[in-house]
Amino acid sequence: MSKTEFIAEPGKQEIVMIRSFAAPRAKVFGAHVDPLAIPKWWGPRIVTTVVDKLDARHGGLWRFIQRDPSGNEYAFRGVFHESRAPERLVRTFEFEMMPEHVLLETVDFEETGGATKVTTRSVFQTLAARDGMLQSGAEGGAVETWDRLEEFLKA
Amino acid sequence: MSKTEFIAEPGKQEIVMIRSFAAPRAKVFGAHVDPLAIPKWWGPRIVTTVVDKLDARHGGLWRFIQRDPSGNEYAFRGVFHESRAPERLVRTFEFEMMPEHVLLETVDFEETGGATKVTTRSVFQTLAARDGMLQSGAEGGAVETWDRLEEFLKA
Repeated sequence: MSKTEFIAEPGKQEIVMIRSFAAPRAKVFGAHVDPLAIPKWWGPRIVTTVVDKLDARHGGLWRFIQRDPSGNEYAFRGVFHESRAPERLVRTFEFEMMPEHVLLETVDFEETGGATKVTTRSVFQTLAARDGMLQSGAEGGAVETWDRLEEFLKA
Repeated sequence: MSKTEFIAEPGKQEIVMIRSFAAPRAKVFGAHVDPLAIPKWWGPRIVTTVVDKLDARHGGLWRFIQRDPSGNEYAFRGVFHESRAPERLVRTFEFEMMPEHVLLETVDFEETGGATKVTTRSVFQTLAARDGMLQSGAEGGAVETWDRLEEFLKA
């Protein structure tokens, strides 16, 4: 069984993911807002991730570029609505090849006994957009990214 | 019957509002991003609205302050994810007295025969937050705001 809880109820335009990491909250939060950390865990293993922008504050931009083994590049971007260290991030998310679709992502960090529970709640503009994301294999990618985060936090 | 279609289906964490305005799209879009226009139509008639910030571009901030007849002030704020004149706005929305709740608002402007159909789709982080907004009387406020927008566009 995966350590990542991935919840996508039928008929709801959201995806919720939950996982506990054996690291203090400040470190887990930091991995999300540090431009030097992101390339070490964000995205699937097969791609290389470059941080173009990562400015975690109200109105700050983020933009990550992924390069696959064939040299193709794909970018993701968004805007931070909130960055309240080490508790919560609220930001928009867009895959630049599908600019019609924007989602709102809320990431909560809760510490209990030295471990940190991360809950990511992504809400989509429409149910169809949520279902499209599921069909694109979002679950596998998300689980792999969080496996990588766990390894990064242990290193 | 109200000219505003207000759609809030049970179990869905969104509110959709639709209304046609007898004005060209560029003018209707402009009323949403012009700091001089907002005080003339945004919000209920009983309050005075002051634009603190309105910077309609990716990463730009907006913040509007409302003053009621007793002198109490309430502020609303958010970040623009996108401003594609005269077609679409995508932005976050927060009532500063309830900073736990952020919603993502997509506003589409479609012109047909000189009239402009505006569709606003607000998606909430949770169903409970959407239902809370409904209970706070969101529909009456939204209808009044769009009545005011119609008057502003005619003036």
